[in-house]
Amino acid sequence: MRGAVMYQAGDVRIEDVPDPTIQEPTDAVIRVTRACICGSDLWPYKSLEANDGARVMGHEAIGVVEEVGADVRAVTIGELVVMPFAFSDGTCMFCQEGLQTECIHGGFFGNPEVPGAQAEAVRVPQADGTIYALPVDEDDALMPSLLTLSDVMGTGHHAAVVARVGRGKSVAVIGDGAVGLCGVIAAKRLGAEQIIIMGRHEDRIALARDFGAAEVVSERGEEAVERVKGLTDGQGVDAVLECVGLDQSMETAVEIARPGGAVGRVGVPQHEATPGAQTSFFKNVTIGGGPAPVRAYIDELLPDILEGRIEPGRVFDRTVDLDGVPEGYRAMNDRESIKVLVKP
Amino acid sequence: MRGAVMYQAGDVRIEDVPDPTIQEPTDAVIRVTRACICGSDLWPYKSLEANDGARVMGHEAIGVVEEVGADVRAVTIGELVVMPFAFSDGTCMFCQEGLQTECIHGGFFGNPEVPGAQAEAVRVPQADGTIYALPVDEDDALMPSLLTLSDVMGTGHHAAVVARVGRGKSVAVIGDGAVGLCGVIAAKRLGAEQIIIMGRHEDRIALARDFGAAEVVSERGEEAVERVKGLTDGQGVDAVLECVGLDQSMETAVEIARPGGAVGRVGVPQHEATPGAQTSFFKNVTIGGGPAPVRAYIDELLPDILEGRIEPGRVFDRTVDLDGVPEGYRAMNDRESIKVLVKP
Repeated sequence: MRGAVMYQAGDVRIEDVPDPTIQEPTDAVIRVTRACICGSDLWPYKSLEANDGARVMGHEAIGVVEEVGADVRAVTIGELVVMPFAFSDGTCMFCQEGLQTECIHGGFFGNPEVPGAQAEAVRVPQADGTIYALPVDEDDALMPSLLTLSDVMGTGHHAAVVARVGRGKSVAVIGDGAVGLCGVIAAKRLGAEQIIIMGRHEDRIALARDFGAAEVVSERGEEAVERVKGLTDGQGVDAVLECVGLDQSMETAVEIARPGGAVGRVGVPQHEATPGAQTSFFKNVTIGGGPAPVRAYIDELLPDILEGRIEPGRVFDRTVDLDGVPEGYRAMNDRESIKVLVKP
Repeated sequence: MRGAVMYQAGDVRIEDVPDPTIQEPTDAVIRVTRACICGSDLWPYKSLEANDGARVMGHEAIGVVEEVGADVRAVTIGELVVMPFAFSDGTCMFCQEGLQTECIHGGFFGNPEVPGAQAEAVRVPQADGTIYALPVDEDDALMPSLLTLSDVMGTGHHAAVVARVGRGKSVAVIGDGAVGLCGVIAAKRLGAEQIIIMGRHEDRIALARDFGAAEVVSERGEEAVERVKGLTDGQGVDAVLECVGLDQSMETAVEIARPGGAVGRVGVPQHEATPGAQTSFFKNVTIGGGPAPVRAYIDELLPDILEGRIEPGRVFDRTVDLDGVPEGYRAMNDRESIKVLVKP
C-alpha cells in the first residue's frame, strides 16, 4: 500500500510501504477513509533527525474494519470506526478511570514501532479498547467533525475539563491552532460565560469568534497579560487552556490565571521545567493536563456532533489525497492552512 | 511590650517594641497567649539580609481580644481567638470561595509592614474576617492542637485537599517537618488507605507512624522514587503532599505520582520553574497548591480537635517563653526540635 513516510525534518514522501497485517490477536486492520495532519506532526517536521528512524506518519483516522485478530470481540468487519491517536486496552485500571492515554498496554501511532494512519490502511493494536464504531456512512457530510474525535476535539475538551471550565466561568484559550479552536468549542459547550482567544491569525480568529470567543488578544508576553487582566476586572481568568506548549505560552498561562484558577495544558511542553513556579504557588493556581484520553470523551462528544450542536470539522480548511500530504505539511508549517484533511 | 525581632539571618533578639494599637477601624489588638515558630520562619533565619528590614516575627497565635476598631462586629473584647497566618476581609470574592490567602485586602504577618505574633500582643488587620473565636479557656489542655489551626494543620490539610486525597487513596508525604506531619494527619482523616512518609529524622518518623503513616521512605532522589514505586505496584501514589519546596523534592513529587495523580504543594518553592514538565505532562499529573487558606478550614478541623480525634499539637516538642525564642530558632534550624511553642 501507499503511505506518507517522514525521513527527517521537512522530508515527507509518499511511498510503497508494507501492508498492515494482524500481528497480535487483539489487532485490527482498518482501511483508512479519512486521515489528517496534526499540529503535533509539525514538531518532527521541524526537528526529526535522519537517525531517529523513518516512520509512516499520522495518528488520526476514520476507516472501515477490514480484518480482526482472534481475540477481538467488540469490533466487526465492515464497521466504520474512528481511531483515537493513542491505542489502549480498555480494561486496565487507567482505562477504567477514563485515562486511556496512560493505559499500561497502550501506545501511540506514527512512530518507527507503530506505523501511522496517513496511509491506505493502518494496524490498530488493542482494537477492542481503541476504535469506536460510528453510526454513519463513510461519506457522510459529518466526516470532518467526526474525524476530530480522534484527536483535536477531544484534546481541546481535555484542556477545558482539566482547567475546570463550567457554567459562568471566564476562559482564555492560548493558541489558535486546531486544538485551540476546539478548546473554544469545548469551553462554550461546557457553559463558559467569557471566552478570550489568544492568537494572531485572522482566519483562525474569525473561526474562534464563530465558535464562541467574544474577545481576541493578539499581543504576546507582558502586553498579553495586561490585556487579559483588563478584560477580567484585573484578576485574570478562571480557566486557561494552554494549547501551544512553548515556554512563553506557559508563562503567559500562569500569569493570566486568576488566584485559585486552573491551567489545562495540552500543548506538548517544549521545556524541561514549567515556568512561573512562584507565581502559580502564591496564586494557588493548579496546572494539569497531558495527552488527552480522547477515547473516553467520544461518548460525550459524539451526540453533539451527530446532532449538529458543535462543528469542530470546520478547523479543516484544505483536503488532499495521499499525494498531497507533503504539500499539506508545508502549508500547515507555513501557517497557510489550519488543518489538512487527507482522503487516501 | 516585648517582641522577637529578626535583624538578619541568625540574628533574633528579644526587645522592647511599640505596643500595637488600632490603626484602622477594622483592626483588633490581641494579647498573645500562645505563639510559635514556623518552618517557614527558618527561610529568613537562613537568608535575611540586614537591609531587608528588621521585623517582629511570627504568624501563628492564640490570644485574647483586648481592643477592637469601630467597624469590628464579629469579635468581642475578652474572647479567646486563633489568628491564621494571613489576614483577610472575609467578604471579597476570594474569601467567599474559601480562598482567604488570596483576599484582595489581605496580607501576611511578620514582616516590616505588619508586625508578627512572637510578642506580647499583635495588631490584627481585618479582624472580622481573620480571627476565629475558640470555645475553651486560655489554658485549656488542647492549646497546642488549637494553635496548629493558625497554620500547620490547615496547611497540611490544604496539601491533602489539593492532592485530592480521599477514601482508599495512596498518599506520599514529602517532608517530615510539622507541616508534613500534619499532612499525614490530614491524609488519614480524609480516608487514605496507604500513607508513606518520606523523611529521615527518627523522632519525626515515629510521630508520623503514630499519625497513620504505615510506611517510611528515607532515601532521596532516584532511590526514593524506586522505593515508593515498589510500595505501590510500580505505578506510584494517587496523591503527593509536597511539604518542602526544594527543587529536588518537587522533582521527586512528580516522579512518584501515578499517572492521573495529583501533587499538592505547600512548601514555598525555592525555584523559579517547576521541575519535571515532561514527566508531569505525559503522566497527566496535576500540580496545585500554595499558601493555605487555613481560615477556611477551621470550621471543618476544629471539631476534630475539640473531640480528640486528631492531635496535631503533638508536633510541638519544646515550649519556651519570649526570652527563649532565639534559642528556639536555633534548635529548629539545627533540627533539634520539630516545632517550638511560645508562651509570651
